[in-house]
Amino acid sequence: MAITLIINTGSTSKKYALYDQRKVVLEFRYERTASGYEVCTKNATGAQSSAGITQTDFSASLTQVVPAINEYLAEHTKVLDSICVRVVAPGTPFQQHQVIDAAYRAALRQAELTSPLHVPTTLQEIHAAKLAFPAATIVAASDSAFHDTMPERSREFSIDRSDAELYDVHRFGCHGLSVASIVRRVHPVTGLNPERVVVVHVGGGVSVTALHKNVSIDTSIGYASASGLPMGTRAGELDAGALLRLMRSKNLRPSEAEMYLYTKGGLAGLADDGDIRRLLDRRSKGDAVATAALDLFVYHIQKMIAAMTVPLGGLDLLVLTGTACSRSAELRTLILSGLSHLGVAIDSDRNETLVNADGLFNKKDAAVKVAAIRTDEMGEMVYVAEQFRKK
Amino acid sequence: MAITLIINTGSTSKKYALYDQRKVVLEFRYERTASGYEVCTKNATGAQSSAGITQTDFSASLTQVVPAINEYLAEHTKVLDSICVRVVAPGTPFQQHQVIDAAYRAALRQAELTSPLHVPTTLQEIHAAKLAFPAATIVAASDSAFHDTMPERSREFSIDRSDAELYDVHRFGCHGLSVASIVRRVHPVTGLNPERVVVVHVGGGVSVTALHKNVSIDTSIGYASASGLPMGTRAGELDAGALLRLMRSKNLRPSEAEMYLYTKGGLAGLADDGDIRRLLDRRSKGDAVATAALDLFVYHIQKMIAAMTVPLGGLDLLVLTGTACSRSAELRTLILSGLSHLGVAIDSDRNETLVNADGLFNKKDAAVKVAAIRTDEMGEMVYVAEQFRKK
Repeated sequence: MAITLIINTGSTSKKYALYDQRKVVLEFRYERTASGYEVCTKNATGAQSSAGITQTDFSASLTQVVPAINEYLAEHTKVLDSICVRVVAPGTPFQQHQVIDAAYRAALRQAELTSPLHVPTTLQEIHAAKLAFPAATIVAASDSAFHDTMPERSREFSIDRSDAELYDVHRFGCHGLSVASIVRRVHPVTGLNPERVVVVHVGGGVSVTALHKNVSIDTSIGYASASGLPMGTRAGELDAGALLRLMRSKNLRPSEAEMYLYTKGGLAGLADDGDIRRLLDRRSKGDAVATAALDLFVYHIQKMIAAMTVPLGGLDLLVLTGTACSRSAELRTLILSGLSHLGVAIDSDRNETLVNADGLFNKKDAAVKVAAIRTDEMGEMVYVAEQFRKK
Repeated sequence: MAITLIINTGSTSKKYALYDQRKVVLEFRYERTASGYEVCTKNATGAQSSAGITQTDFSASLTQVVPAINEYLAEHTKVLDSICVRVVAPGTPFQQHQVIDAAYRAALRQAELTSPLHVPTTLQEIHAAKLAFPAATIVAASDSAFHDTMPERSREFSIDRSDAELYDVHRFGCHGLSVASIVRRVHPVTGLNPERVVVVHVGGGVSVTALHKNVSIDTSIGYASASGLPMGTRAGELDAGALLRLMRSKNLRPSEAEMYLYTKGGLAGLADDGDIRRLLDRRSKGDAVATAALDLFVYHIQKMIAAMTVPLGGLDLLVLTGTACSRSAELRTLILSGLSHLGVAIDSDRNETLVNADGLFNKKDAAVKVAAIRTDEMGEMVYVAEQFRKK
């Protein structure tokens, strides 16, 4: 009768979910919006409410959800067994799921510089969680662990091998929890057991992963979670030499350059807005800047999908996931429209029906199956926490 | 009866060719080898000779070839009309072919920092050429000009648009002269006029370019000539965040980081040797390090070829060029072996016969034609010089 608290902090949001066994009983979503901050709450009956909050409330979000959690535990005479925190950071110490101890926290503090958008918040949450629930085991769910299976040609950069080892610079990948949740749901949703799958995740971050027999063999994100593809605010595909040019011209130190990569690029850099919904809206009204930004954004995703057919030797199933893909049939259409030469052909009517829903939407006779499947990082983290309860 | 001197300096070599009209009459190739320096000379009759030289001779190479050029001019009572110098540097000022004047030289001096491997030598050669042949027009043949046709989605990074404009940070591409020379030779060699062509150039640098109706619509090299794909000594695909990590760990300044990107990566970083011939040899003897390095090297090229099918909507012809591709059937086999799902299938016997030769070598019934075509950057530069004589 295990109870797990899931903590999933992103660059602009913090999500909490209390699971009784594998079922969500409480959910809190703190978000920074264009106009301020808000929290959405959902309880076991599915009743939802949302409210505007202050920045202070946003910072102290975990403290704010503790009373509701304790109330649930008291009401059902249960205790909180474990807390599972999503960790996004490059480095071998962070490429496995594990119980968070002092050594792990020390390693995380060292990683603050290389992951300025994710790690500082993660450390705050771990600290707050320990204070609030001192008896619970706190588990780190690595967002890179799933990519641990990548072969050398996908995992290594072409840099001096001794530097790569000494400074632990490899392509660790991200969105591993999301992709793992998709692997778990491909068969239930599609009825298929395809060998060659590409998963496209478009949320605040963007990645493309190649799965062979459900195992990650390549992914677009390399070392930094701001690498690979253009994202909401992350530059993604900026080449290292171009960054050096910007560092010289703008007189940026490495830490400032790092923040630049994470915050000044992607759709925000191109169109002054990292929100895909608003850009799609501007595009539909004929805004040329938004149209060009989305064109570039989608183009890189398409090229990466095509590139991933190489390690797979072709493609059986293409899965679109992540918040942006799940809620917008229009975005899915844009992404898939340039891939007919790979055997992708979509059923537009079927696509339109899939709003925050799961299902196949390829044309019946298409060579490649195409599915929209909602990611379930939080649900995946419950499975991660379970691994440590068994031990 | 125009006489043109072509100067083509690379990262480890300097080539000179004297053209009488469009015919080479003298050729000098200065190279840094594993054991020292050497020069190979070829005259109008095709007679070749080579000799070891000192580092001083290598540095003063242009001065050394002047007597032979003057001898040819005197013997044929001709004058040197123009000198054409290959320029590899990112930046709008360098993206067109043009007569080199004081402003252009000043711009090049500014570019030394961003192109530490190419620009300093180029400036030396221009200086020496002016001294040796003061009456000749000196023309810059831009190695990026050919990519001037790329659409916005290929040309722009997803960074702050005003920074991109202000600091002139765009994807300029390289190997334009090589690709232009291939465009000129596709029909003579293959008898085809394909619409959708991918050109793979593997020499000291490595790039993949998508041509639609003979026009560049995308290319793998972005801002730095050390970007895109792993090369002999250039890291290529290293993500900007990973470079920042190395800068912090190794305490590198931007100029040092730049040299790192150009000299510590690629095959040299992975296998302590940037020479593909020697690596293929080590591979054939079962050397695991060389095998893994080539595997990674080839893998990135394959993925980029597949990616380029997106802007083209498929593929009609794949051309392999550059010194390494032209002389090694084995390298071509490695590159093409992972692309059968794109319709690539090669005739192995035919491939073996093409050593420093041009021709098709796809299987007769293959969906995609495949050709080896020798690059002719120097010959292309004669055409560039001609444009300025007409004016």
